[in-house]
Amino acid sequence: MRWKKVAIIGVGLIGGSVGLTLRRRGLADEVIGIGRRSSSLRVASRVGAVTSTTMDLARGVRQAELVVVCSPVERVAAQILEAAQHCPAQALITDAASTKTNIVRAVASGLGKTPRVRFVGSHPIAGGEKSGAGAARDDLFADRLVVVTPWRQSQKSAAAAVESFWQSLGARTVQTTPEAHDRILALTSHLPHVVAAALAAATPQDLLPYAGTGWADTTRIAAGSPDLWEQILADNRPDVVKRLDRLAKVLAEFRAALVDGDSRQLLRLLKTGKKHRDALGN
Amino acid sequence: MRWKKVAIIGVGLIGGSVGLTLRRRGLADEVIGIGRRSSSLRVASRVGAVTSTTMDLARGVRQAELVVVCSPVERVAAQILEAAQHCPAQALITDAASTKTNIVRAVASGLGKTPRVRFVGSHPIAGGEKSGAGAARDDLFADRLVVVTPWRQSQKSAAAAVESFWQSLGARTVQTTPEAHDRILALTSHLPHVVAAALAAATPQDLLPYAGTGWADTTRIAAGSPDLWEQILADNRPDVVKRLDRLAKVLAEFRAALVDGDSRQLLRLLKTGKKHRDALGN
Repeated sequence: MRWKKVAIIGVGLIGGSVGLTLRRRGLADEVIGIGRRSSSLRVASRVGAVTSTTMDLARGVRQAELVVVCSPVERVAAQILEAAQHCPAQALITDAASTKTNIVRAVASGLGKTPRVRFVGSHPIAGGEKSGAGAARDDLFADRLVVVTPWRQSQKSAAAAVESFWQSLGARTVQTTPEAHDRILALTSHLPHVVAAALAAATPQDLLPYAGTGWADTTRIAAGSPDLWEQILADNRPDVVKRLDRLAKVLAEFRAALVDGDSRQLLRLLKTGKKHRDALGN
Repeated sequence: MRWKKVAIIGVGLIGGSVGLTLRRRGLADEVIGIGRRSSSLRVASRVGAVTSTTMDLARGVRQAELVVVCSPVERVAAQILEAAQHCPAQALITDAASTKTNIVRAVASGLGKTPRVRFVGSHPIAGGEKSGAGAARDDLFADRLVVVTPWRQSQKSAAAAVESFWQSLGARTVQTTPEAHDRILALTSHLPHVVAAALAAATPQDLLPYAGTGWADTTRIAAGSPDLWEQILADNRPDVVKRLDRLAKVLAEFRAALVDGDSRQLLRLLKTGKKHRDALGN
């Protein structure tokens, strides 16, 4: 798989890493970075993530065989639809947003019954607390999972093409429905962010000298961008609330075990946590 | 500060690291490891954390100028009191338990009005998910904070000696009352453990392939020993419950902001979390 021209809309950590990996692996002749701020575009150019840049989306996607939208959640659907009007017919379009249901529905509805482009959503489960193309890495997707979310049968070949694209960057891929994606990621990604942020917010700064590596690890992702995460959480609201309620129940079980002095129950809860954590490894 | 003989009761990660650091820095002629399982003692010998070992506490502390009790929380007070009967008069005794109030009270009461030893509790805020002397490191305390908890005025010089001891291992030190220690650590150490374990426990294992670095970081400490943590949490029960209730309030604020679609409030909470996390660094 080798592309003549790839357009990346939004050149932050994810978009920058897509570009950098494409270029380092010699997978694209031309990678154009499309963004709203010239400063971000300059950084993307400087680190070698793109071969050219523009702030004009319509012009940027012209002749692109592949368009990857890596903007903040709120902007993704509208940018996909705009790109779809200006890129070549049958171009492949995907995105990297952390939520899928609303985006895929809005795009499906906007593209209509006979779309002129092939859009399939995706979500690379990769990232970090650092943001911006300055933090881009050519191994950000290495061995990471990308969830690809086709929304109807007819998308089979396009979904396979999107899977191949992410695999060419070193990732593993899996297909789910957009709804299943959001249900699962609410638990494995969005809830941890709420928990980390809540724990950090509940800790007065003057007590930080008493924080060890445990507090540091548990709150690490709270350093992520509040603006990006507000959009993710808001977009996946019902699933996040459900997962939050489930967590609150487990925390209440811990509380009851403590208050009751029920050592066996406390131990049981801790053992379940350890079992699940150990199953992940690292 | 150089010791002729130091006795370490409990040669796991912490005790082993105390011994290893003492020996590598040439701070003690003799370091005796005292434990209940010959397998642990063998590991401590093998890694060079101790110069000799015994399962006989009374004999082990004989002639020791310094006794450091690094056992699981439940055993600490009784072992300090036993050591106090058999070590030289005026020997310095400290411990490394993660909770202080109950231990210090039990020891103070057991030692009576004219103690024949100098006991001051301490808690090195250092550790890791790995346990056992096999994981001992000579830099475990480097630049880490050790909280030293004298329980009355007359302990000034002994507290200073305990501070010097930990400083000689590379640590920074601070003094608080045992009660203040437990109030603070309930938030900065014990609550994070509950949160990590609850999040891990609430995540079915079949969804782990969808867990990214965020879930991994946030749940990392849940891999710690359930037995040790059950003792810590149970021993600091009232403070942990208070902190848990405070966290539940912050989580409820997140939930309300989500349910109400209140973006500004959601953003405000995320920003507070980020501000506190950024203040810690790393």
